[in-house]
Amino acid sequence: MPSLSSDVFARLPEPAALDRLAAAAARAYGALSREHIVPAPGTQILLPLVAALVRPGRAAVLGPTYAEFTRVAKLVGHDMDEVGDIGRLKDADLAVMVNPNNPDGRVFGKDELLDLADALTRRGGLLVVDEAFMDVGPAGASLCGEVAHRNLVVLRSFGKFFGLAGVRLGFAMAAPKLAARLAASLGPWAVSGPAIAIGEAALVDVLWAKAMRERLDGEARRLDAVLADLRMKVVGGTPLFRLVHVPAADHLFRHLGRAGVLVRRFPEQPAWLRIGLPANEAAWDRLSVALAAFAS
Amino acid sequence: MPSLSSDVFARLPEPAALDRLAAAAARAYGALSREHIVPAPGTQILLPLVAALVRPGRAAVLGPTYAEFTRVAKLVGHDMDEVGDIGRLKDADLAVMVNPNNPDGRVFGKDELLDLADALTRRGGLLVVDEAFMDVGPAGASLCGEVAHRNLVVLRSFGKFFGLAGVRLGFAMAAPKLAARLAASLGPWAVSGPAIAIGEAALVDVLWAKAMRERLDGEARRLDAVLADLRMKVVGGTPLFRLVHVPAADHLFRHLGRAGVLVRRFPEQPAWLRIGLPANEAAWDRLSVALAAFAS
Repeated sequence: MPSLSSDVFARLPEPAALDRLAAAAARAYGALSREHIVPAPGTQILLPLVAALVRPGRAAVLGPTYAEFTRVAKLVGHDMDEVGDIGRLKDADLAVMVNPNNPDGRVFGKDELLDLADALTRRGGLLVVDEAFMDVGPAGASLCGEVAHRNLVVLRSFGKFFGLAGVRLGFAMAAPKLAARLAASLGPWAVSGPAIAIGEAALVDVLWAKAMRERLDGEARRLDAVLADLRMKVVGGTPLFRLVHVPAADHLFRHLGRAGVLVRRFPEQPAWLRIGLPANEAAWDRLSVALAAFAS
Repeated sequence: MPSLSSDVFARLPEPAALDRLAAAAARAYGALSREHIVPAPGTQILLPLVAALVRPGRAAVLGPTYAEFTRVAKLVGHDMDEVGDIGRLKDADLAVMVNPNNPDGRVFGKDELLDLADALTRRGGLLVVDEAFMDVGPAGASLCGEVAHRNLVVLRSFGKFFGLAGVRLGFAMAAPKLAARLAASLGPWAVSGPAIAIGEAALVDVLWAKAMRERLDGEARRLDAVLADLRMKVVGGTPLFRLVHVPAADHLFRHLGRAGVLVRRFPEQPAWLRIGLPANEAAWDRLSVALAAFAS
């Protein structure tokens, strides 16, 4: 993290500083220009604004995924269905999917998603692709450079990959008219001074990002080895987390919690647990010891 | 400013930390309970959410004031009029005023505003009172404790008084039903980790706030003396700024700008300039020298 000047906390962020952040993010994510990117205090706060880009109608989200999409679409006035098959998104007014998906890590191809976006655009619908985990996704799979001339909004999170979720920083990529509507709702000072300074410094650091991707790949293989030793079945994931299928998932969830290891469970998928990469060696030890005790 | 742990930047803010911040703010501002206060990343981002609490209709703002209210009310679908007399707010669906007002410093009494809020409530309208400068306003004038059982939203800014505008932190006070609607749109992680930590530490520091109010009162008198020496007419203000009336305001604006002193001008009121308190002795020197050179 860069050292932060006191001005970053004291002064209202300047438009020029926000422009520099946006330019750094546009390069990092492959957005087309400053007019195609909207910086925000996290992607969460963008969800109701993005959902309100289309009139209240039929919304669909490709599930299972993050529950906030459903809550927010309903809040904005849409009827919201969770669908299990991507083909069923094309009849919606607002279609939402996560790529790579959380928690199963499914990755969808660019051509398939652009066809879907074009089909929705012809009908006046909108496709929202949340690329929260694309920093660790396959090269070339991002749609950030494909938003011109389509009703397509792509969301990118800053905090997950950089390990700085508390900073609250995220971006929407969209055609300039849609981007301008999102920016108008956020107003001129939505992103904090610390988030602007930290975000710009991190997003221009291409070598750091490359080294981090390699480190995460290595750590994900280490986690796979721990899970394989205990014969736990990995059914999906990204380099930031693995999804395991365990019949006694609820029991394991509570066992890990007592050992100080927080994992995610899924009410709709009671045999799933999402296990994140441990943050340091002490956390690796806690996880390995707790998993081994459970398996024995 | 408190020293910040790296966790504040790294981790997604916990609901318990947001609750502690809200409790500190509720005590500092005199809000009734946690259910009556909504923390946000600045009050600016709350404006469209507050304006959307009533159906698109007739909005009115008591002017002259901050131009963002008009922009945002139109964005949300209201017809917006600026009115010069507070009596004309009572026929609006959405009525907005700033107390103490920016830039003229006018302060409105509590009884008058509560009568207005009650009249609006009976008709299904909403009164929004922006108390951005109330930290330096007269004791007992705040409406933060009066929001129950009325269609009344009171906004408080954190950054202006504490000199931490870059942190992005603000609050809405409202009856629990309205507060819950605002919180639902913001989502669970709208306020950053640094803003939560800094905000809580600052808002519980009652002695610091008292000392700061006294210091600002003293500095405002010092500014008055500088302006009086040069026979410049002060027509309003708060302890954080003075509003002066100068026939050659546009000329003075540019003269001060060349000297590195940024003041505010008002397109609708061409003889007004708003002069903020200088931040340090060097800035006091710049202001005094530049004003004296202009007057001579």
